[in-house]
Amino acid sequence: VGIDPVYERLPAGLREDRDPGDESAAEALVEFGRRIIRAVAPLVPVVKINSAFFERYGGHGVRGYYELVREAAHQELIVIGDVKRGDVGHSAEQYARACLAGPVGGEAKGRATPDAITVNPYFGWDGVRPFIDVARQQQKGVFLLVRTSNPSAGEFQHLATDSGPTVADHVAGRLQAWASQAGLLGESGYSCVGAVVSTRDIEEARRLRTQLERSIFLIPGYGAQGMGLDAVAALFNKDGTGAVVNASRSIIYAYQGADPEEAAAQRWEHAVERACKKSIQELADRLAQI
Amino acid sequence: VGIDPVYERLPAGLREDRDPGDESAAEALVEFGRRIIRAVAPLVPVVKINSAFFERYGGHGVRGYYELVREAAHQELIVIGDVKRGDVGHSAEQYARACLAGPVGGEAKGRATPDAITVNPYFGWDGVRPFIDVARQQQKGVFLLVRTSNPSAGEFQHLATDSGPTVADHVAGRLQAWASQAGLLGESGYSCVGAVVSTRDIEEARRLRTQLERSIFLIPGYGAQGMGLDAVAALFNKDGTGAVVNASRSIIYAYQGADPEEAAAQRWEHAVERACKKSIQELADRLAQI
Repeated sequence: VGIDPVYERLPAGLREDRDPGDESAAEALVEFGRRIIRAVAPLVPVVKINSAFFERYGGHGVRGYYELVREAAHQELIVIGDVKRGDVGHSAEQYARACLAGPVGGEAKGRATPDAITVNPYFGWDGVRPFIDVARQQQKGVFLLVRTSNPSAGEFQHLATDSGPTVADHVAGRLQAWASQAGLLGESGYSCVGAVVSTRDIEEARRLRTQLERSIFLIPGYGAQGMGLDAVAALFNKDGTGAVVNASRSIIYAYQGADPEEAAAQRWEHAVERACKKSIQELADRLAQI
Repeated sequence: VGIDPVYERLPAGLREDRDPGDESAAEALVEFGRRIIRAVAPLVPVVKINSAFFERYGGHGVRGYYELVREAAHQELIVIGDVKRGDVGHSAEQYARACLAGPVGGEAKGRATPDAITVNPYFGWDGVRPFIDVARQQQKGVFLLVRTSNPSAGEFQHLATDSGPTVADHVAGRLQAWASQAGLLGESGYSCVGAVVSTRDIEEARRLRTQLERSIFLIPGYGAQGMGLDAVAALFNKDGTGAVVNASRSIIYAYQGADPEEAAAQRWEHAVERACKKSIQELADRLAQI
């Protein structure tokens, strides 16, 4: 379940007595995220927390993001910090340490950090390496963006190169080499270097799955962003492992348009739980056919 | 002048009585940045503040980053927020608003925001558009990463596509179209959509300069990262405008290895000023030959 809340869409009860233009709005986001996490913790293994929606509130929001990371860890969930960082060497190292080892300072005391983060590969190896190095040191993971879920993702990612493969295929090729390095493979045979892959093209999904057999895929775009079950299924390995499917808006806002009495009675988490169970069932039914 | 300080390299006087593992380290970075800004404000038109080095300290560091943005604005400097953000539509909008319009909340009161930020184009148009939209609304600017300064930048950016140009050339081609849209050009004829370009290849520099005539180039990598004067000169237009040259470490750490008495006497800014003037003179001499 992906947590990327905007204030305007929060349940009315969480917005009462708050000013959308000050820190109390960020507190409402954190309270919402905490209740989402508690609602879905018995149902799913992983939550993805999108840093952008918290950074909107500056330093206050950053603290809120880490509060939710801690809450999710406390609920024994795996936590993906969706931070989409990427930079050249020295700066990449700063981002990697902050995002995976945790920021320096008093706020860090007793605070959990995400188990993995998302990283932009546009800089090539010396932009990616600091993230992999810190991930290895901290026993954590990275998901490199290979194919993103937005409509114009193909604009650069799908450019065909003179040797034939697309840019995304080239990124996948390098990722395959990086992920297979000594010390990065776990007991399961999977690497701590994963890939963000979202595509409606089943052939592309199969190709990337075959190429990146040692990488776990983070699949955004299921649900509200409209990626279908067949393409999702093609991104799993034959044994039914190797991918994490994310749905955000279709689950966290499920109370919108649901029973108004339920919402009024502060039972909006019931709608969230139902939507979560429904998505799980849909995926389980389809994956049973792999 | 680029501000991307690490605690270990600060002048000894700024590190006295501080604990590198808590917020007081972030305060030292901010004090250092403030003194750098005051030292170089009479000499240069622009500072670039690298968010990564402040995010290392969590929410506390984010506040410090904005304190320096405010200080630089107070000194009438143009401020580039080097944040290298990039994401898909909804998340990109959150980042764009936070980074260019300023975070929501009390911290924002009386606070300046950067005049421009750096943005990663890997997502294509619908990842870039929210940044341009907010820049237009706020009368600010964006610099899209086209060619970065790190050794492995060519790994993906220099892939040749089947139609001939490299990936970076394709990004430049799209940037050209985006930058030329109605409402984005200022009185000078330059667009609010600029490009980060760093290359040692003079032919590539000339090609990008000709192609992106309406875009201001942000040129990292001068100084410590070793980009030469001829390549820098090739990134300027014939009238001597159109580019901002950044040097970070070669200036902000200029006191290291300088006169120990000067450093001991808390006059380390003198070495910073000298290094800044030297770089300006080098550039001016070379650009006079354009």
